[in-house]
Amino acid sequence: MANVYDTANQLAADLRQSQQFLDLKKSYDMLKLDAVAYALFKQFQDLQSDLQQKQMQGIEITQEMVQPLQDLGQKMQTIQPIQDLMAKEQALSVMMDDLNQVIAQPIAELYQDKQ
Amino acid sequence: MANVYDTANQLAADLRQSQQFLDLKKSYDMLKLDAVAYALFKQFQDLQSDLQQKQMQGIEITQEMVQPLQDLGQKMQTIQPIQDLMAKEQALSVMMDDLNQVIAQPIAELYQDKQ
Repeated sequence: MANVYDTANQLAADLRQSQQFLDLKKSYDMLKLDAVAYALFKQFQDLQSDLQQKQMQGIEITQEMVQPLQDLGQKMQTIQPIQDLMAKEQALSVMMDDLNQVIAQPIAELYQDKQ
Repeated sequence: MANVYDTANQLAADLRQSQQFLDLKKSYDMLKLDAVAYALFKQFQDLQSDLQQKQMQGIEITQEMVQPLQDLGQKMQTIQPIQDLMAKEQALSVMMDDLNQVIAQPIAELYQDKQ
């Protein structure tokens, strides 16, 4: 039996070589070549992380706080390299969900009294 | 390079052999021996799954709907085999969070421009 952490590290290494991850990396590298689009994307990430931190601190999130993020999100939808990145994120996210389901299967089966 | 799904299956197999999972399984087996406690636990699971389905259907969850779950939750806290199961669930959940962080590391590093 392998140690779960060793196997998780192996999975992370395999993930780096997966088509979905390589596609995402390629899209992200393309995005970085477009200075304006990349700056917008970074601004979006910062706003998002700021809001998440506020939420974790128990600060109530108002529409006023969310508005700049929504505006920027809308603007980003018209920008090709960001659209492309989001499509690749979505594809990777589908695979990650599948993997998580495989990994959590033993717990699901336990509670379904299958073992 | 291994296929990510093969490695995820290996991780699920390793998880089944981990101390945290074996401890949870043992607690669950003990709980099943206590018919009253087990029935309460199953009732709690059913209520919880019912509420989650409602939520996924976009039905607004009212305090009236949550109350039976909260009442049952409180009752369960006084029952030793359920308390024990919850402690083992918590320990497994800490490990699962760690594993998820290891697995998602490539994506985190990508966006931190570490690769």
